[in-house]
Amino acid sequence: MAIRVGIVGFRGYSGAELIRILSRHPQAEPVLLEHRSDSEPALHPRGWKGPKVAPATPQAVRDEGIAVVFLATPANVSMELAPSMIDAGAKIVDLSGAFRLRTADNHRKWYKEEHTATGWLAKAVYGLPEFYRDKIPAATLVSNPGCYPTAANLAIRPLVASGIADRKAGIVCDAKSGVSGSGRKPSLKSSFCEVTGNFSAYSILDHRHVPEVLMNSGLEEAEFSFTAHLIPADRGILETIYFRAAKPVDAAGVVAAYEKEYAGEPFVRIYDPGKVPDLHAVAHTNFCDIGVKMDTATGRGVVVSVIDNLIKGAAGQAVQNMNLIMGFAETEGLL
Amino acid sequence: MAIRVGIVGFRGYSGAELIRILSRHPQAEPVLLEHRSDSEPALHPRGWKGPKVAPATPQAVRDEGIAVVFLATPANVSMELAPSMIDAGAKIVDLSGAFRLRTADNHRKWYKEEHTATGWLAKAVYGLPEFYRDKIPAATLVSNPGCYPTAANLAIRPLVASGIADRKAGIVCDAKSGVSGSGRKPSLKSSFCEVTGNFSAYSILDHRHVPEVLMNSGLEEAEFSFTAHLIPADRGILETIYFRAAKPVDAAGVVAAYEKEYAGEPFVRIYDPGKVPDLHAVAHTNFCDIGVKMDTATGRGVVVSVIDNLIKGAAGQAVQNMNLIMGFAETEGLL
Amino acid sequence: MAIRVGIVGFRGYSGAELIRILSRHPQAEPVLLEHRSDSEPALHPRGWKGPKVAPATPQAVRDEGIAVVFLATPANVSMELAPSMIDAGAKIVDLSGAFRLRTADNHRKWYKEEHTATGWLAKAVYGLPEFYRDKIPAATLVSNPGCYPTAANLAIRPLVASGIADRKAGIVCDAKSGVSGSGRKPSLKSSFCEVTGNFSAYSILDHRHVPEVLMNSGLEEAEFSFTAHLIPADRGILETIYFRAAKPVDAAGVVAAYEKEYAGEPFVRIYDPGKVPDLHAVAHTNFCDIGVKMDTATGRGVVVSVIDNLIKGAAGQAVQNMNLIMGFAETEGLL
Amino acid sequence: MAIRVGIVGFRGYSGAELIRILSRHPQAEPVLLEHRSDSEPALHPRGWKGPKVAPATPQAVRDEGIAVVFLATPANVSMELAPSMIDAGAKIVDLSGAFRLRTADNHRKWYKEEHTATGWLAKAVYGLPEFYRDKIPAATLVSNPGCYPTAANLAIRPLVASGIADRKAGIVCDAKSGVSGSGRKPSLKSSFCEVTGNFSAYSILDHRHVPEVLMNSGLEEAEFSFTAHLIPADRGILETIYFRAAKPVDAAGVVAAYEKEYAGEPFVRIYDPGKVPDLHAVAHTNFCDIGVKMDTATGRGVVVSVIDNLIKGAAGQAVQNMNLIMGFAETEGLL
Repeated sequence: MAIRVGIVGFRGYSGAELIRILSRHPQAEPVLLEHRSDSEPALHPRGWKGPKVAPATPQAVRDEGIAVVFLATPANVSMELAPSMIDAGAKIVDLSGAFRLRTADNHRKWYKEEHTATGWLAKAVYGLPEFYRDKIPAATLVSNPGCYPTAANLAIRPLVASGIADRKAGIVCDAKSGVSGSGRKPSLKSSFCEVTGNFSAYSILDHRHVPEVLMNSGLEEAEFSFTAHLIPADRGILETIYFRAAKPVDAAGVVAAYEKEYAGEPFVRIYDPGKVPDLHAVAHTNFCDIGVKMDTATGRGVVVSVIDNLIKGAAGQAVQNMNLIMGFAETEGLL
Repeated sequence: MAIRVGIVGFRGYSGAELIRILSRHPQAEPVLLEHRSDSEPALHPRGWKGPKVAPATPQAVRDEGIAVVFLATPANVSMELAPSMIDAGAKIVDLSGAFRLRTADNHRKWYKEEHTATGWLAKAVYGLPEFYRDKIPAATLVSNPGCYPTAANLAIRPLVASGIADRKAGIVCDAKSGVSGSGRKPSLKSSFCEVTGNFSAYSILDHRHVPEVLMNSGLEEAEFSFTAHLIPADRGILETIYFRAAKPVDAAGVVAAYEKEYAGEPFVRIYDPGKVPDLHAVAHTNFCDIGVKMDTATGRGVVVSVIDNLIKGAAGQAVQNMNLIMGFAETEGLL
Repeated sequence: MAIRVGIVGFRGYSGAELIRILSRHPQAEPVLLEHRSDSEPALHPRGWKGPKVAPATPQAVRDEGIAVVFLATPANVSMELAPSMIDAGAKIVDLSGAFRLRTADNHRKWYKEEHTATGWLAKAVYGLPEFYRDKIPAATLVSNPGCYPTAANLAIRPLVASGIADRKAGIVCDAKSGVSGSGRKPSLKSSFCEVTGNFSAYSILDHRHVPEVLMNSGLEEAEFSFTAHLIPADRGILETIYFRAAKPVDAAGVVAAYEKEYAGEPFVRIYDPGKVPDLHAVAHTNFCDIGVKMDTATGRGVVVSVIDNLIKGAAGQAVQNMNLIMGFAETEGLL
Repeated sequence: MAIRVGIVGFRGYSGAELIRILSRHPQAEPVLLEHRSDSEPALHPRGWKGPKVAPATPQAVRDEGIAVVFLATPANVSMELAPSMIDAGAKIVDLSGAFRLRTADNHRKWYKEEHTATGWLAKAVYGLPEFYRDKIPAATLVSNPGCYPTAANLAIRPLVASGIADRKAGIVCDAKSGVSGSGRKPSLKSSFCEVTGNFSAYSILDHRHVPEVLMNSGLEEAEFSFTAHLIPADRGILETIYFRAAKPVDAAGVVAAYEKEYAGEPFVRIYDPGKVPDLHAVAHTNFCDIGVKMDTATGRGVVVSVIDNLIKGAAGQAVQNMNLIMGFAETEGLL
């Protein structure tokens, strides 16, 4: 029998993907939970009879018998809703940045706001299954990783942990994302005429996703340079990561380290040495594809890591986390 | 010596094109006139030293010695500013819909708003130079045509006036426009992720540009079916016009009628029979390109008419009108 | 137990969608059949282990025990392969134009080529399930409809059959398609720089898909004007259809006629009166969405019909046909 | 009186920009020179009467009295045509890579081909006016810089020459280009459906434009990591350049170094500290815009450099070079 799962923020791009994935999931039945801050029209076709809609309240969690709530909401809404919905008996998978950092100080530093549910900061589990698969099943609140950090952490941590990359030489992550990463609320920056035919850099060296990479890779801030860019495309993230080898290694050697790290992983694909993925390789999928190129004479290396920001970077990974929480097959609904 | 010209609404897409064209115009020097309703950042590069900026007031018109003011503003702002700036001594080229219709009743019917400067409705000259070149030089207020009607009128009027098209059989105009036609104010409908990979119809049979076509072509509303569509592109209008021949004629015959009508016109180009233009043919230019295809056996005809909505459909035609008002060469600054 | 199905032309866009749909289909296992004319690299990620690949020969049909072969190939390849693969025991769903018309003369007229498998022209069943659901199950060769005619026929036939549209006044179908409709073979016309920011008309009044609409709607060629256009988008078809009402009717009346015609249809959705669909409403789905707007005072009507050209216009409808041939649920693998 | 200038390769994207710029240039009259390898249809509208067309031969150079020939051709065509056209009396501005490197060995290493006009390698002048304005006027053959190196050299050389950047820490240049950079010849990689919604890396660490940056900046290959990427846009290059400060400096300090280096330069614009340009800032212009961001606590710096690859990266810079060769104002035809 299918469990019932709630989706708050279903009018946004990640929310729409949650509806799409969960509508086909054989063990989950979605209920749309409308929050008072919602305003945009829903994404599904006019007149379409979608899942049931209920208010985004603890009462609805109880009345509808909802086991898991996905919060595809701004951080301040997540901070407001998560504790009371947990009290109402739900497990939470939060797609916002509200519970990704460990301390209120760090949250204030990067998000420029006070945290209003600090009690859950230490208890939230960081929902990157490839790294924390052992902790997620027992979690009450899973903090779904940021889109950029998902692609970055999967590519960088093995480089650092294996000693392949020379940390002191620094690692550069030049990240590019489709426009859906900035949400569905209209703004000049995401207007068609400003984006088409354009390409721009933003949050140079101070993106709020940086601490998620530091936490997981063990790098110091001084060792990691990150710049985000806007691609004139609706979805997808590609990160070009530059490193210096700590000792002689060729692309095959780096690939071997990745293959060892991700042996058996259902959603990480490592390319043959010298081959790299593009956005189309992972569009509309929950995969993270990684490829490596080395110049062995000089020890310079480049890794390209790609995901669909709305799937592995948001809704797909959130369902992967739900599968782990509920004891379903990890790939259920995602292949 | 160059005259001084004012641009109100210079932060919008048409305003930016006015700046670009007028900055190169050998006989005009632009002054940017800032209106209190302006809010978006200007389009020119940060730090760029553009033309002088003054407030959009009658006083500034006097102080700056401005001969012509371009109003690239919403209709309600144009209705407010035009009379007082005329009083201050300026000629007006209004790019909004404020002064395109002849009566307050007609304006109310199509624009769903009361007209607040009715005294100028009958005195405004419709600024389509190919039809009204004799009246524009003496005008105090030129109402620049709508973008859709510019492409439609140039293609349709010769068909009707020459008797080639069977009016009673009706004329269909299927119109498509790039997104800049809906302005620069952010909205969900013009957000990148909603537009890219999409195509949509709007204002089916009731677009406010319809009466401009009826006025100029002599068609009755029942004889003219018009639907607007949004192209996932930033600029350009393509209209596909379907008609029935009133008497036997081939494409060469229709082309001959156009060539006769537009002999010597600097900004209308007629294609060889059977050939039709695309948007790229006129991008960033003040041309209207027209092509014809006929099925002579059945008398069905199709005309394709294209313009750049921001140039011949807005800023370029406005400068063409200014050239006529001031007695400059009509093509000055536009080739 | 799943049947085995072959895909010829799997390197093209329709072929890639067939792989995607059939890989998830619970009752079919895809085998890729490589034809000597194939040259482009496959679309799936480098290094991905996809379905088995065998040669596109009758022998492979026998050796692999293939029940149904999908031909996502040019018409001349379909004419060559279909008869011999039928002899080898396979049912055929042909996605090309090879078997859509009824006579060799008609094929020559519209396709400008001789037909080389004329024996199958009369035996092929036109695979539009909404119209021919009774004949498809017994077919040996199903000719999958063209993309434009799928959207056109579903919208137009009820208008004509019900007597709502005045046939003699003519029906205009202004059709727009994404670029994948012209296939994957590189050409200047489908190059990125020629398409982006552009919009163009082609095959004005003489598109080879016209006879498919005449056959199914009962219209005469003189009564039907069709123009195709290229949208700067990868997928999707939107058709804007103009008609004159034969007797007074409002949008609700037209919608009622559609709802009666398509009651119970799993893949046709009719919108509320006055509402019309856009491409995003059906992207990546097998739906055809239809909306209607009427000007009752003058009897002018507009219908908007949309499909995803690669799904309902190609691969999805092909699988729908396979489901009917094999006696599976018609929606299997398609929702 | 205007000089006559020839354009070989006028059917390509750079060639079309040369026509556009030179048609407005008050001191030059373009003649199109058709080479036997030309095959694509011209870019200007069908039926348009463009400049005169002559064969791309030394005889035509003499007959037409051509003073300067622009070669917007593949490297092998440039190597073939340049020497004989020089013999016929023309100065050459070559837009290909044929004469950018100094030795036949270096050319073979990076271009994987033998050089067939080695006599001109040492005599060609590298046409980056901001660096070699003193040598260009006397040149017989100017080798127009590559598009990527133009943006890279203008940004990197001042960083290295001033001692701001720590060379030993390495400099990373993550470069992104619109599709027109790969030319107009159709290929799968530049097909609309493969590019739209996509983003890809190519020529990682081994792009043939690398030696042009090494030559001009003084960096060693081991100190410079370069990766090219394809933006789903038609034109524009944005390069994100990462460096480590050799000594404490803030963004204002780096900006000051650029402003000193480029004081008086008509086509280089430096942004306020912390501000960076995007592609739209330079689209359809001959500007290179540069912005800087620093994290002073750690000494990490990022520079963003943008150009229009078809203008400052090709046709515009070529005309800038022609202006210098002919003693015209350097900005003539380019503002």
